[in-house]
Amino acid sequence: MEKINQTIAGIKPLDKKAMAEAQMRQDNLTKPQGSLGQLESLSIQIAGIKGNPRPQIGHKVIFTLAGDHGVTKEGVSAYPSEVTPQMVYNFLRRGAGINVLASHIGARVVVADLGVASLLERHPDLKDKKVAMGTKNMALGPAMSREQAIRSIEAGMDLVEEELPNGIDILGTGDMGIGNTTPSSAIAAAFTGADVAMVTGRGTGIDDEGWRRKVKVIEKSLEINRPNAKDPIDVLSKVGGFEIGGIAGVILAGALYRILVVIDGFVSGAAALIATSLAPQVKPYLIASHQSAEKGHPILLGHIGLKPLLNLSMRLGEGTGAALGIFLAEASLKILNEMSTFAEAGVSEKG
Amino acid sequence: MEKINQTIAGIKPLDKKAMAEAQMRQDNLTKPQGSLGQLESLSIQIAGIKGNPRPQIGHKVIFTLAGDHGVTKEGVSAYPSEVTPQMVYNFLRRGAGINVLASHIGARVVVADLGVASLLERHPDLKDKKVAMGTKNMALGPAMSREQAIRSIEAGMDLVEEELPNGIDILGTGDMGIGNTTPSSAIAAAFTGADVAMVTGRGTGIDDEGWRRKVKVIEKSLEINRPNAKDPIDVLSKVGGFEIGGIAGVILAGALYRILVVIDGFVSGAAALIATSLAPQVKPYLIASHQSAEKGHPILLGHIGLKPLLNLSMRLGEGTGAALGIFLAEASLKILNEMSTFAEAGVSEKG
Repeated sequence: MEKINQTIAGIKPLDKKAMAEAQMRQDNLTKPQGSLGQLESLSIQIAGIKGNPRPQIGHKVIFTLAGDHGVTKEGVSAYPSEVTPQMVYNFLRRGAGINVLASHIGARVVVADLGVASLLERHPDLKDKKVAMGTKNMALGPAMSREQAIRSIEAGMDLVEEELPNGIDILGTGDMGIGNTTPSSAIAAAFTGADVAMVTGRGTGIDDEGWRRKVKVIEKSLEINRPNAKDPIDVLSKVGGFEIGGIAGVILAGALYRILVVIDGFVSGAAALIATSLAPQVKPYLIASHQSAEKGHPILLGHIGLKPLLNLSMRLGEGTGAALGIFLAEASLKILNEMSTFAEAGVSEKG
Repeated sequence: MEKINQTIAGIKPLDKKAMAEAQMRQDNLTKPQGSLGQLESLSIQIAGIKGNPRPQIGHKVIFTLAGDHGVTKEGVSAYPSEVTPQMVYNFLRRGAGINVLASHIGARVVVADLGVASLLERHPDLKDKKVAMGTKNMALGPAMSREQAIRSIEAGMDLVEEELPNGIDILGTGDMGIGNTTPSSAIAAAFTGADVAMVTGRGTGIDDEGWRRKVKVIEKSLEINRPNAKDPIDVLSKVGGFEIGGIAGVILAGALYRILVVIDGFVSGAAALIATSLAPQVKPYLIASHQSAEKGHPILLGHIGLKPLLNLSMRLGEGTGAALGIFLAEASLKILNEMSTFAEAGVSEKG
């Protein structure tokens, strides 16, 4: 827990001076003030994060963390757990959605095993941060021990720190884990107080009967475990997942190292709930890339206070939404840095 | 009018066979079916447009058309008309928002003078399609003659045809013209039947008093001119603009040459109203890149039947929203073409 506490203690507020300078530049670029909407506000947020009124983005990194979930034994997912390691190999062979979109935006993908329920073959591009061979079934008791929850968060922090020497100007979060919308919904219910049915969606695509079963399993998990929303580690250990804890760690380390953190969809959102509950000062470092098709995502984002940039009915995870958000963040900085001012262009200002 | 009629007659329906094949491939890629939402449907639409189940995007072109508006004499804009030619020069020096975002997505920008109210210096990158030195004041009579309206549409078609030898796989529309949200609102009111106040926004940023004046000017223009919504050329000539007619021509030619047409914001939307009223079969060739901050844009898009991809409170025009839409269209095709199938990746399918 010491590493987590030190990280949280090290997170600074955004640099207001850099933000004011960036705002002034935006207001002098050859466009009506505010006419690029969220592309303008994004650039100002990033200026504050970087402490630089003209920040540049070079290195873009998406952290895609994998883990398995004991609760899949309750029949909460449309896919079998064996898909988790299969998809990890798919990431490493660059055949998955996140590989395609990361390549489209020129980002690197860091793939990490936080708790896949099988021994994965070693691969130069696979980070081994396995906490355990999948979580336990949260419908019967805690998903993991408190110590494992802490270890998963610290493993996420380690991933960011190990990648820092390669350069990270902006990072995206991503997840892979069959069954992981189930703990994510439990986390959302625990923190927001919303009814389980309001924050439970169809994940990879279960039918009506499967959805009703999933809701009951989550309700049971919350009843049995009674997670304490005032203690985010308790919530993570009782109804969370290793990749979810890892993503929370990635988010916290991102804020510590003054990196814009682009949150993917519902599962990354659950991790952001944990991170922002541990350290509310993380919030200015975050943007929500998109609103996913997963029911409950708007409630989750609303609770954190994030407005999603995109709403394309996506629900794949892996960091695919984050990749699109990184593209928009980069666009916002190019606007800030590359557009001409009224004076430079000899354009008349507002009459 | 012969060129317009021939173009309309030549627009074919989308290729259903290519769409079915693209859909089948999407359903076999390593992700839950439908989990990339609009990125999937976009790729299938493009397959239908191209008549190719695995279409590629190489050449991306944004057509940014400029024109001036006599109605600015009524005080409907926050900026003086001299900004129109100044911004054209800014485009040619690559200092404007559209230059930055086009460069970000790797698109070419074709800049054309459809009716700027001053003689522009020749420039190798400026297409001279001037129909007249700006429109007349539509608050006092028709903005242009019927013959000029036809000429502006045909000029837009010519722009596409002249660019075809350089390659166009996808095109975006864009506009520049101080005062041009005023005719756009008039066009929206004429076609949708909505009250003028419901489809009139603040353009580049007028205050409350300016907004009330703008609404009255548009109401007066519609009363005096009585545009006939059943005759889109009549609407364009009475309350339109040269760049708006030109964009309508770009849209029609795009559909003829089976090119995905990415519509920018409110002004391009008004042009899309004209194009789709002339030829409803154009609609499947269009995507709406974004919902702009300009009031009335949702009504306009709803009337055409287009759902915007983005909603970032942008209201700059120039094709800036279209550039972001082109990026998403390209992402959709990369997903279709580059992701592995379940069989290729050895991933188990839905249980």
